[in-house]
Amino acid sequence: MSTGGNSGATATNKQVILRDYVTGFPKESDFDFTTTTVELRVPEGSNSVLVKNLYLSCDPYMRSRMGKPADSALAQAFTVGQPILGYGVSRVIESGHPDYKKGDLLWGIVGWEEYSVITPIPDMHFKIHHTDVPLSYYTGLLGMPGMTAYAGFYEICSPKKGETVYVSAASGAVGQLVGQFAKMMGCYVVGSAGSKEKVDLLKTKFGFDDAFNYKEEQDLSAALKRCFPKGIDIYFENVGGKMLDAVLLNMNMHGRIAVCGMISQYNLEDQEGVHNLSTIIYKRIRIQGFVVYDHYDKYSKFLEFVLPCIKEGKIAYVEDVAEGLEKGPEALVGLFHGKNVGKQVVVVARE
Amino acid sequence: MSTGGNSGATATNKQVILRDYVTGFPKESDFDFTTTTVELRVPEGSNSVLVKNLYLSCDPYMRSRMGKPADSALAQAFTVGQPILGYGVSRVIESGHPDYKKGDLLWGIVGWEEYSVITPIPDMHFKIHHTDVPLSYYTGLLGMPGMTAYAGFYEICSPKKGETVYVSAASGAVGQLVGQFAKMMGCYVVGSAGSKEKVDLLKTKFGFDDAFNYKEEQDLSAALKRCFPKGIDIYFENVGGKMLDAVLLNMNMHGRIAVCGMISQYNLEDQEGVHNLSTIIYKRIRIQGFVVYDHYDKYSKFLEFVLPCIKEGKIAYVEDVAEGLEKGPEALVGLFHGKNVGKQVVVVARE
Repeated sequence: MSTGGNSGATATNKQVILRDYVTGFPKESDFDFTTTTVELRVPEGSNSVLVKNLYLSCDPYMRSRMGKPADSALAQAFTVGQPILGYGVSRVIESGHPDYKKGDLLWGIVGWEEYSVITPIPDMHFKIHHTDVPLSYYTGLLGMPGMTAYAGFYEICSPKKGETVYVSAASGAVGQLVGQFAKMMGCYVVGSAGSKEKVDLLKTKFGFDDAFNYKEEQDLSAALKRCFPKGIDIYFENVGGKMLDAVLLNMNMHGRIAVCGMISQYNLEDQEGVHNLSTIIYKRIRIQGFVVYDHYDKYSKFLEFVLPCIKEGKIAYVEDVAEGLEKGPEALVGLFHGKNVGKQVVVVARE
Repeated sequence: MSTGGNSGATATNKQVILRDYVTGFPKESDFDFTTTTVELRVPEGSNSVLVKNLYLSCDPYMRSRMGKPADSALAQAFTVGQPILGYGVSRVIESGHPDYKKGDLLWGIVGWEEYSVITPIPDMHFKIHHTDVPLSYYTGLLGMPGMTAYAGFYEICSPKKGETVYVSAASGAVGQLVGQFAKMMGCYVVGSAGSKEKVDLLKTKFGFDDAFNYKEEQDLSAALKRCFPKGIDIYFENVGGKMLDAVLLNMNMHGRIAVCGMISQYNLEDQEGVHNLSTIIYKRIRIQGFVVYDHYDKYSKFLEFVLPCIKEGKIAYVEDVAEGLEKGPEALVGLFHGKNVGKQVVVVARE
């Protein structure tokens, strides 16, 4: 940290910059790593907040912000030449906002940089009140992915005790929680993932009834039939494409498919065709896409539910931690190749 | 009609027989036309009913009963060498069933033949109480397709006044009613069909706000964008495949797709792939398959609603009538080539 003339204290600010719009799989070379200087104050009279970023979150939806603006529909495209944006956990350094004061902790959208100036927006930034849990959890279990799992499972899947539940990308930030919520409700839960290590995690750590490595299955439909001889009542969809096709063949009557994501499709120029959709007619299947933004009004109810579960050891949670902002691009790119085991976090500063 | 010894009165009974399981598009040669003899009585002590069939209904779902048993999931496969089955309007000739007496009219599943012996099953056979409308209407507007349109639109689409509604196969038995129900609710309604004659019918007879001939459009998505510059809130899906892909690109946020049928796919060995499913995530789209069988408990409520509409001229209805059981196979096969203009009916007897 240095002092910079009349403008007061400044600090160096490392940043991860989008070099150009991404096509296909993102590569580390799509990002630049730069160092700038930031003034450690907020503009006079503004309601902005200067935060020091502690943890950054790598999430699959971020792919949709890397393409050209016209291609990005879920969220606004990142700006070329600017830091990319994502969920993070941050400490307030200085505040012009009435709801935030110096020293507060928050989670929400910040830049991939050491310091960000943000204007807190309800349902995009949340003050952290409970600090007797690891702060990094607010990038996952206690943040957007946790809320996604909670709303997606309880609100979208209409689950009932004794039903069968299949979760794809099951060891990821959202999947691991959906599986545990389903177990807590008394469902039979099977997950899939892309390595033996992840499959073992599902069965031993997260308490899934069964799990399989989709990369080792010649016939996904046969794998599902083996795991669900009586069919699938609920599918929590994270991957799309061939997996969805196989699931459709194994769904039960009046089954529900909550579509949280389709990570297998995000990096394809032309998305795979799904061929078995006509099964949804006679099976009376409901397919429901959802986005967590619509459900943040339930965030405090979610915390009331999940914090005791964590403290009582009823919920397990696994993070894959990359140390240092410099490791951010590699961690983010790795997400789309399934390299992470558990929720992918980037530590910017441990304070 | 002749008399046959001790067994009492008999009659000749023309029948349409399934020659062999159908693959690809059904052809007239998949059916045999035979004449047998039927005893004009019900077995003593049985609760069967002998009916004379007056009108038979050609419905797209019947394709699912023509394949090999394993391929038919919606309904049981037809039996090779036996008359095919379908919805019909029939007069009771003799009855062993307490709820039916000689002279009663009913609609429901019967054989494609002049006389059938049936065992009436609730929710599969319905007594006709209102005869001040054309009886053939009970194969369509007042029967299974009418109930499908009613349940599909009001129960599955969650429609609201002012919303935009797109109906494919819009001049068919179900589509023409969905469009009119939507207009009555104050929606903006566009339909598609496969000929100029049908498109004209949609605009002039059924009161659709707009309509297009899908066979003349190079780019279905562009056609939909032209008809729905502000997007589609509700899609009533009757065709599937490429059309569904184009619709997905034009759906609005929180849109609903009621999947009634996918007639474009029924005769394909390998169904077309649908590529734009990931749009359902960020648009929060709900896709709901449904089958009319689940909704017959609302049939009397439906009649209370629709009979006055017919009498007051608020609902138009167009039938395509084939005269004589002999014309049945041609009419049924024509359905899968879009040859019918309006609801396809086969007249077996006008009494």
